[in-house]
Amino acid sequence: MNEKWKKIDQYAQQWIKEAGARIKDTFQQQLMIQTKSSRTDLVTNVDREIEQFFIANIRHTFPQHRVLGEEGFGDRLTALEGIVWIIDPIDGTMNFIHQQRNFAISVGIYEDGIGMIGYIYDVVHDELYYAHKGTGAFLNGVKLSPLAETSISESIVSINATWVTKNKRIDANVLAPLVKDARGTRSYGSAALEMAYVASGRLDAYITMRLSPWDFAAGLVLVNEVGGIVTNLYGEPLNLLGENSVLVAKPGLHEEILNKYVRK
Amino acid sequence: MNEKWKKIDQYAQQWIKEAGARIKDTFQQQLMIQTKSSRTDLVTNVDREIEQFFIANIRHTFPQHRVLGEEGFGDRLTALEGIVWIIDPIDGTMNFIHQQRNFAISVGIYEDGIGMIGYIYDVVHDELYYAHKGTGAFLNGVKLSPLAETSISESIVSINATWVTKNKRIDANVLAPLVKDARGTRSYGSAALEMAYVASGRLDAYITMRLSPWDFAAGLVLVNEVGGIVTNLYGEPLNLLGENSVLVAKPGLHEEILNKYVRK
Repeated sequence: MNEKWKKIDQYAQQWIKEAGARIKDTFQQQLMIQTKSSRTDLVTNVDREIEQFFIANIRHTFPQHRVLGEEGFGDRLTALEGIVWIIDPIDGTMNFIHQQRNFAISVGIYEDGIGMIGYIYDVVHDELYYAHKGTGAFLNGVKLSPLAETSISESIVSINATWVTKNKRIDANVLAPLVKDARGTRSYGSAALEMAYVASGRLDAYITMRLSPWDFAAGLVLVNEVGGIVTNLYGEPLNLLGENSVLVAKPGLHEEILNKYVRK
Repeated sequence: MNEKWKKIDQYAQQWIKEAGARIKDTFQQQLMIQTKSSRTDLVTNVDREIEQFFIANIRHTFPQHRVLGEEGFGDRLTALEGIVWIIDPIDGTMNFIHQQRNFAISVGIYEDGIGMIGYIYDVVHDELYYAHKGTGAFLNGVKLSPLAETSISESIVSINATWVTKNKRIDANVLAPLVKDARGTRSYGSAALEMAYVASGRLDAYITMRLSPWDFAAGLVLVNEVGGIVTNLYGEPLNLLGENSVLVAKPGLHEEILNKYVRK
């Protein structure tokens, strides 16, 4: 890692840990909860405050960097030139509200559209997943192993029941046979954590039909560094400036899911 | 709690903590994994060893008690008179194998068919959920609050995608509308933990179509103690000597699920 990225990494880790401490401090407070695009799309004052905390720090320390944040306090981006921080202050807000766990801070740092560093911080479990392009992925400093090939019958796949029942994004019958063929299915409600679980081998695949860049920007760097594959559900690269379906999987399994269920 | 139950409780907690330590010790070892009733029904040498550990201790200390255990080393029971320990040494074996987390030791102690004490021990997170009939439920010694009424639209429901796709136990269309109406759905792959999450308010309901007594014996005591409701999916009491569908929910929500989806 060169000096430029060392400095960025150092600040990012410091801010993420501080943001985590701030989030924990709110556990005793009454949250202000609002809905955004729909009745299940929730945001709290904490999501907003944490995003503003990151943005204030980035603007002060790296004034030439830009920020794309879930809560909209960053820049309005139409392209990804230069260095862009893509931030979800609390990925899994519903879990944050209901469970005070199973949520994460997600920070991906991109340069000219290429994912350079990804951080996913599971605040409550104090687990920091970290990857830097070309140097591997780490969980609390311990290097993660490259992902081995696997097949659907030996896989745990994270997929929400929404995507195999009537919904606006995909015919419920497309992925239903996958639920039957997998060893098991799970659903955790935080895209960042679900990508981190694939990267660390706790899950073999993760499928969802609607993610924004801040949900997957860090996970993309992380999963790529251990040899996992991240595309949309149709095998195409993700669009970092819009919404996407997302298919994250171990090698082999990614192709099996595409060929056997999606393109069949 | 009278002296008899105090003694039982003291030994049970000691054995559960020791079993947890033994399970953690196996994390560095190679597991021996076998299938049981189906290709997704897994068992390891650790499940077996931990069940035998409990049974040896119970037989030595409480020779008149009987044991119903998942791995079959206990007694063959046709009735529940006397004191019966109902034990799942590792609830969530698939998670234990794939994730080394999200599993629990589940121990329910019944007298003449009535749940007297329930323990669910989340080994990795060192969280012991505990309830004694009539004296409340506790998480690591902190008393859990009584569950408040809630409605489906504000609920997180734990339901595996299996039960809303083609399966042998229920028409996939019965519960599909519930997935749409809930605020969110999750699936964790451990019945004991999912019941503990309802008891502690992290989930509002949990639905599954096939549980054995050792999966829910402890959770039943726990959820009842905080005012949650546990029945089969058709509103009937659970059978402690056979397989059951299971519907666990906060008050109000339990009735809403029965009336709006199951009995509609």
